[in-house]
Amino acid sequence: MEPAGASPTTSAALRVIPLGGVGEIGKNMTVLEYGHEIIVIDCGLMFPEAEMLGVDLVIPDISYLRERADRVRAFILTHGHEDHVGALPYVLPAVNAPIYATRLTRGLVEVKLREHRLLNQARFHTVMAGERVRIGPFEVEFFHMCHSIPDNVGLAIRTPEGLVVHTSDFKFDHTPVDGQPTDFQRLAALGAEGVLLLLCDSTNADRPGFTPSERTVSEAFDRVFAQAPGRIIVTTFASLISRVQQVIDAAERYGRKVALVGRSMIQNVSMAIDLGYLQVPEGVLVPFSETEHLPADEVVLITTGAQGEPTSVLARIANRDHHQVSIVPGDTVVLSATPVPGNEETVHRTIDNLFRQGADVLYYDLADVHVSGHASQEELKLLIAMLRPQYFMPVHGEYRHLVLNARLAQSLGIPPSNIIIAEDGDVLEFQGGRARRAGSVPAGLVFVDGLGVGDVGEVVLRDRRLLSQDGLVVAVVTVDRHTGHLVGTPDIISRGFVYAPEAEALIAGARQQIQMELNGQADHEADFTFVQSKVHDVLSRYFHRETRRRPMIIPVVVEV
Amino acid sequence: MEPAGASPTTSAALRVIPLGGVGEIGKNMTVLEYGHEIIVIDCGLMFPEAEMLGVDLVIPDISYLRERADRVRAFILTHGHEDHVGALPYVLPAVNAPIYATRLTRGLVEVKLREHRLLNQARFHTVMAGERVRIGPFEVEFFHMCHSIPDNVGLAIRTPEGLVVHTSDFKFDHTPVDGQPTDFQRLAALGAEGVLLLLCDSTNADRPGFTPSERTVSEAFDRVFAQAPGRIIVTTFASLISRVQQVIDAAERYGRKVALVGRSMIQNVSMAIDLGYLQVPEGVLVPFSETEHLPADEVVLITTGAQGEPTSVLARIANRDHHQVSIVPGDTVVLSATPVPGNEETVHRTIDNLFRQGADVLYYDLADVHVSGHASQEELKLLIAMLRPQYFMPVHGEYRHLVLNARLAQSLGIPPSNIIIAEDGDVLEFQGGRARRAGSVPAGLVFVDGLGVGDVGEVVLRDRRLLSQDGLVVAVVTVDRHTGHLVGTPDIISRGFVYAPEAEALIAGARQQIQMELNGQADHEADFTFVQSKVHDVLSRYFHRETRRRPMIIPVVVEV
Repeated sequence: MEPAGASPTTSAALRVIPLGGVGEIGKNMTVLEYGHEIIVIDCGLMFPEAEMLGVDLVIPDISYLRERADRVRAFILTHGHEDHVGALPYVLPAVNAPIYATRLTRGLVEVKLREHRLLNQARFHTVMAGERVRIGPFEVEFFHMCHSIPDNVGLAIRTPEGLVVHTSDFKFDHTPVDGQPTDFQRLAALGAEGVLLLLCDSTNADRPGFTPSERTVSEAFDRVFAQAPGRIIVTTFASLISRVQQVIDAAERYGRKVALVGRSMIQNVSMAIDLGYLQVPEGVLVPFSETEHLPADEVVLITTGAQGEPTSVLARIANRDHHQVSIVPGDTVVLSATPVPGNEETVHRTIDNLFRQGADVLYYDLADVHVSGHASQEELKLLIAMLRPQYFMPVHGEYRHLVLNARLAQSLGIPPSNIIIAEDGDVLEFQGGRARRAGSVPAGLVFVDGLGVGDVGEVVLRDRRLLSQDGLVVAVVTVDRHTGHLVGTPDIISRGFVYAPEAEALIAGARQQIQMELNGQADHEADFTFVQSKVHDVLSRYFHRETRRRPMIIPVVVEV
Repeated sequence: MEPAGASPTTSAALRVIPLGGVGEIGKNMTVLEYGHEIIVIDCGLMFPEAEMLGVDLVIPDISYLRERADRVRAFILTHGHEDHVGALPYVLPAVNAPIYATRLTRGLVEVKLREHRLLNQARFHTVMAGERVRIGPFEVEFFHMCHSIPDNVGLAIRTPEGLVVHTSDFKFDHTPVDGQPTDFQRLAALGAEGVLLLLCDSTNADRPGFTPSERTVSEAFDRVFAQAPGRIIVTTFASLISRVQQVIDAAERYGRKVALVGRSMIQNVSMAIDLGYLQVPEGVLVPFSETEHLPADEVVLITTGAQGEPTSVLARIANRDHHQVSIVPGDTVVLSATPVPGNEETVHRTIDNLFRQGADVLYYDLADVHVSGHASQEELKLLIAMLRPQYFMPVHGEYRHLVLNARLAQSLGIPPSNIIIAEDGDVLEFQGGRARRAGSVPAGLVFVDGLGVGDVGEVVLRDRRLLSQDGLVVAVVTVDRHTGHLVGTPDIISRGFVYAPEAEALIAGARQQIQMELNGQADHEADFTFVQSKVHDVLSRYFHRETRRRPMIIPVVVEV
């Protein structure tokens, strides 16, 4: 690759810009731009990290797209998981381009847009694997790639500069649940055609070998269903349609009825049944109320909450707080998911509470009740070997995964100069068969908190962090506007700092400190800002000396 | 076991009370009481969980011991890890009993007590494996058990009611670093003698098979040391003395010098060398400054920070914020530890930042650079089979580990009625060869925050949680004491709620809401509490309607 800052572009070039999906898990979004035409691959969200206090969701910064909204020709979706489509409700109002998606992906997105009352604004084009669509200077071909959800497609995008392949999330599952293995013929043909750039899933680039087939989960379910003495409660993601199919199949084999618990699970499953992506034998699926009259060993419940989310069905059950389901001894709970990094503690607490109530709990450490949906190292190597791309850009993974995926590519003979580890917003430009880094565009994280999108930024988060560590102290100080001296006694209000009823001496000391500070001076006109900063400083010093804590100090100065 | 509430005790009985170490990882502490004499096994701390906002450390609630301080005859320590000895500096001032510990354990505790200026108050008895000590009605025998630290001992405690065995943390490592395998002969003899109660490490009760020997880590180090092109930076726990020995041994084999970085690492290592627990060949250990003049491929650094703790050496290095060490391409960083649950996110961020700076990073997912120090299922079964205890009580693990360890015991023929899954504070009473649950004593978590021990409780934490989610709003309202009407305009101060410069309309609306609420009423004497709750309610409703957030509202009412 040529160095950054090389000859500026004069005529049209192909620009590839990741706005999400490099350097972190989730919020996948990649921009392809040629001349004045833009297509956007995926539009995902990520769940906030622990330090993003109070934030509900994280979406990509789309200011680059917002300023060019009239040039955006399409959102091209690879599959229906949240980290690939979840930001659409927040992005569509600003950039309302047509959405290209396979049937199941469209169904999942429609459920989501309906909730946000945006469904009638969306313009969908339903596509299927094998189809080619022309969008401005781009021709987008969809080809089937296995993942943990049906109807997942990789993208082969022909541009005036050459062929760009995007793997989507994938694994090479030879025995997938929906019977549709990865389209190796198509991959081989693309490799033969010549790939300019490969954008490649990196999630499992640190795992040696091959990722096990989804089939192994069915085998684990068989063992569980054959032995469970009472109800079976399977918990997974609401969008993991293939897993739901596996539970329904196992239930039928072992003569159990299945009930769904939780709104998102019910909505997604009924949509998937309507579209024909879930095959449910007559009579297997029943309303929850019906299961209450069945023998326990003829019942399976499917719920959400595999990540221990406090408001999820499973967490409520574990806390004896669900309006329908409570654990009875003999229940077997199956957690068919692994915790997303950062969620381990809450998931473990949920498991412990289920055990406390007498359930048997099968989780990832104990049984093969979950497999990853992402390719391990041998699969990644096979993919790269089949496609033999000229340039390689790892996406979808935390930074270490990108580095490790890049190493795999290098080990297969792709020269280091043709491997691009980008961060969000980095611009990669192709022109005349050559690539160069061409600066960067605004990119980053936008926080969704309640109704606010983007109004919580670093300043607000920093304050939340401070408040979460040592709480706060409000000091209400009334001063005489002529002398600057205190009137009455300062009022001290604390929250999250010390347990007030037992800290009377500490608080009384704080009042004294303020009195000494403000009354120790000669008379002068009260200066609001001066008094504020005096009170702030004296209390900060005092409380740190006495407690080694640093509560946020908010002085309220009233002049009379 | 007899049901709770059976015939009350009249004469002396043996009481076993876990005050820590059941139901969570860490803060191990078990009380044995006979008549009026008490011995305490271990005195550990745990690191706070993510939701314990601002808390530095967590120690056991020792109010039961504090009230009986004059009856406590001894602290018996099994080994020198934080989760077994770390609470001593906080407990000794209240309960200053003699401390029985092996030499290395004593050395590690002394380092800690010296920091807290408590060393001269502590009364130590140094013991060694094979020794027996009589303490009141108890005879305590120490026997060697392998763990990831030298000088670890299990306890065989003879009481008037029978023999109680405490495993300490252990694994059956046949090739340990210090050459001292577990004392199987002693275990077999204890089994033959007859064990009334076994208190058994449960940490890895969910792992099948055997835990690999520490030797496998040396083999992994050999591979790393043979290939690393530049400096090697090994990060582990400061108390993992065996691991430090392995690094020193590997360094010597490959002709590298070792420097220690970080105060706790330097203190512990020099103590362990002084006591003869670390064998360092002449000239291998050098000050950091000397490594700066050596070729990079002749240098090894050992640091703390394997848990990504923000103030640790490794985190500072990863953030380019360490005063001595900065990463240069070619460096190889080895994380010789697995993240404690809850620390995954920070550890991953540290790894990513090290990669960003050009280091190669070997972590648990990639190489066998760490093994657990705890017994897996086959080792646990072997232990139980050798000791054949009459009663079995799993300790040291989260609740699910206790349940799984209990199942192992049951699979080996111990009747379910003789297996006790206790929570902290549960009292187990033995008299005349029979056991009964005998209620419970105060127990739980005590938070250490700055200088405060125990003054941060649920109320303070609840406020910190609220503040961390949506921040706060202080509303300063001046009212006429005669009419109850507003004087001037209310002042609104927010922190961690919205970004104030961009939320002027929202804040102006809040002022209006207060004005409408307070001025819409007939004149009457101002009622402080009434105005406060009015302001609180109207703002809560308003902000939630407008933002779907629930900031903490603090009304400050000033009467004029």
